[in-house]
Amino acid sequence: MMKKDKLNVAVVGATGAVGTKILEKLLERDFPASSIKMLASKRSAGQEIVAGGRSYIVEETVPESFDGIDIAFFSAGGSISQKFAPEAVKRGAVVIDNTSAFRMDEGIPLVVPEVNAHALNQHAGIIANPNCSTIQMVAALQPVKEKFGISKIIVSTYQAVSGAGAEAIDELNEQSKQFEDRVEIEAQLLPSASAEKHYPIAFNVIPQIDLFGDAGYTLEEWKMMNETKKIFGDSTIAVSATCVRLPVVTGHSESVYIEIDQDDVTVDVLRSVINEAPGVVLQDDPASQTYPMPLYAEGKDAVFVGRIRKDPSHPRGFHLWIVADNLLKGAALNSVQIAEELIKS
Amino acid sequence: MMKKDKLNVAVVGATGAVGTKILEKLLERDFPASSIKMLASKRSAGQEIVAGGRSYIVEETVPESFDGIDIAFFSAGGSISQKFAPEAVKRGAVVIDNTSAFRMDEGIPLVVPEVNAHALNQHAGIIANPNCSTIQMVAALQPVKEKFGISKIIVSTYQAVSGAGAEAIDELNEQSKQFEDRVEIEAQLLPSASAEKHYPIAFNVIPQIDLFGDAGYTLEEWKMMNETKKIFGDSTIAVSATCVRLPVVTGHSESVYIEIDQDDVTVDVLRSVINEAPGVVLQDDPASQTYPMPLYAEGKDAVFVGRIRKDPSHPRGFHLWIVADNLLKGAALNSVQIAEELIKS
Repeated sequence: MMKKDKLNVAVVGATGAVGTKILEKLLERDFPASSIKMLASKRSAGQEIVAGGRSYIVEETVPESFDGIDIAFFSAGGSISQKFAPEAVKRGAVVIDNTSAFRMDEGIPLVVPEVNAHALNQHAGIIANPNCSTIQMVAALQPVKEKFGISKIIVSTYQAVSGAGAEAIDELNEQSKQFEDRVEIEAQLLPSASAEKHYPIAFNVIPQIDLFGDAGYTLEEWKMMNETKKIFGDSTIAVSATCVRLPVVTGHSESVYIEIDQDDVTVDVLRSVINEAPGVVLQDDPASQTYPMPLYAEGKDAVFVGRIRKDPSHPRGFHLWIVADNLLKGAALNSVQIAEELIKS
Repeated sequence: MMKKDKLNVAVVGATGAVGTKILEKLLERDFPASSIKMLASKRSAGQEIVAGGRSYIVEETVPESFDGIDIAFFSAGGSISQKFAPEAVKRGAVVIDNTSAFRMDEGIPLVVPEVNAHALNQHAGIIANPNCSTIQMVAALQPVKEKFGISKIIVSTYQAVSGAGAEAIDELNEQSKQFEDRVEIEAQLLPSASAEKHYPIAFNVIPQIDLFGDAGYTLEEWKMMNETKKIFGDSTIAVSATCVRLPVVTGHSESVYIEIDQDDVTVDVLRSVINEAPGVVLQDDPASQTYPMPLYAEGKDAVFVGRIRKDPSHPRGFHLWIVADNLLKGAALNSVQIAEELIKS
């Protein structure tokens, strides 16, 4: 789709938890970039980022930053994307946006390459990278959907703090020390910087991610419910989500219940179908206590699936446990994979 | 049912996480005990426990310990209950057993007083206290079941380490320090002392509680599925569970999906029904970010319920978030409440 051998790339949100991972993945996967411009806020301009033996000096994001840029990755928050993505497109760049700013807009492809790369065939300059929790779930379920059909999904998430950015990791570390030292725990960020109340996450569980939306669901829950339908291209699939934040640094886990359309599918058959899915690694052997855990998924590209069981009461019901690094497949890696898909001849 | 004014009480497992809480609850609730004997293993004999301004010297558990005892609380593991509960009954005591040793045995009442106190009318000396995760779920769902009927329950748990005993709390604390100090994390206990492999729980999530049983479900998951049916006295109710351990000290959380038997029930009606349930406290107001969290449930007697939502696709489907102190309502408090029920005239 893109006909140049070497591309000029920009990363907006260069100093953030996801931005630094995008740079790492571009280098690690030998993305054909002739230049990589690292962009952030005025406050971060001048900072040095060292990666792959090279030094990158962070520049302030201004409209002119995108002159001559072919691909711009955005992960600096929705308002920055709203402001600068159209500027980048105006100057001829394709934007791969990791925020929720455009995800549900008509005409904006929302893409997990293993699931719906075909959606990239039509775009108007902006391509949206889905929510981290959504990506790992649809990547794991895609082969099941393709082979048997899925009519219903109920997911409860176990999400790491790094999904809320680098400051949330600092907050968990600080609070953990405060807890051990038995001094008062200070909460300033979670569940959401823009929420009115903040609660400790260390040694706690917060059943709120992002702000509350309609019908008692949080925006994170609505993202999972709406984005899953859009990526699967199936508005009839029943999806409900409960999104929960945990004292884990990196790695989202999900307890997922599905109802498939076909009778008489065994756990073994389901397991072998998931095992063949691109980007998915099966870790499922109760006898050897093999199942995915976030501590071991951190830094890995794959989506890990285990604890596959048949529901004891529903003949077409199954349970799965899905874990992935939320900063990689959940964000940076998926964004770079979208770019790779775009430049395939 | 018991016709004495003052009772001789024994607590087996006196030095454990639950045993000490049973003593606390007996004193706090003015249980009519003329004596409280604290029993444990030979290794713990001679230890002093101070509670309510009195000192209790721990004695070794031997069959003769139960001579003259009216009520014996057991929470020292299944094998101890197997060995000594029949001895206690032989000597005329009623046993309230907090282990899983007898729970599913026919003729053994499995009791959450708010749900099925009537089951106490017939017993043969041993009464079983259900699994911690089961207790808080059935206590919260009982009024819904009574008013509307429940046909299906899907639960994903977020369980604290204290459910695995006092040593698991030490392990979490040790590992948290090791993680902060960036030294290797030593795992010796979780997911289960008797499991072959042990995994870190600090800053991790382990989707295994207890050993694995049939069909890929863990024993903890089978406990929730089987005990819920027994307590509700309804073998037709569809229950499936995914049980997960988290780096939280005390307080189990549960993401619960239910399908009720009645159409056109609104969230407001469901909320008001749950609000009237004995022992249940509603914490459910998205506008003020009010929902239950384990850090705030610790040390409290109530079962807290929030995040009540209608399923977006199923007309009789609802989601709830249920949190309780697993050592209190999940164990010690429920056991003492069973004893209180037994001595009601």
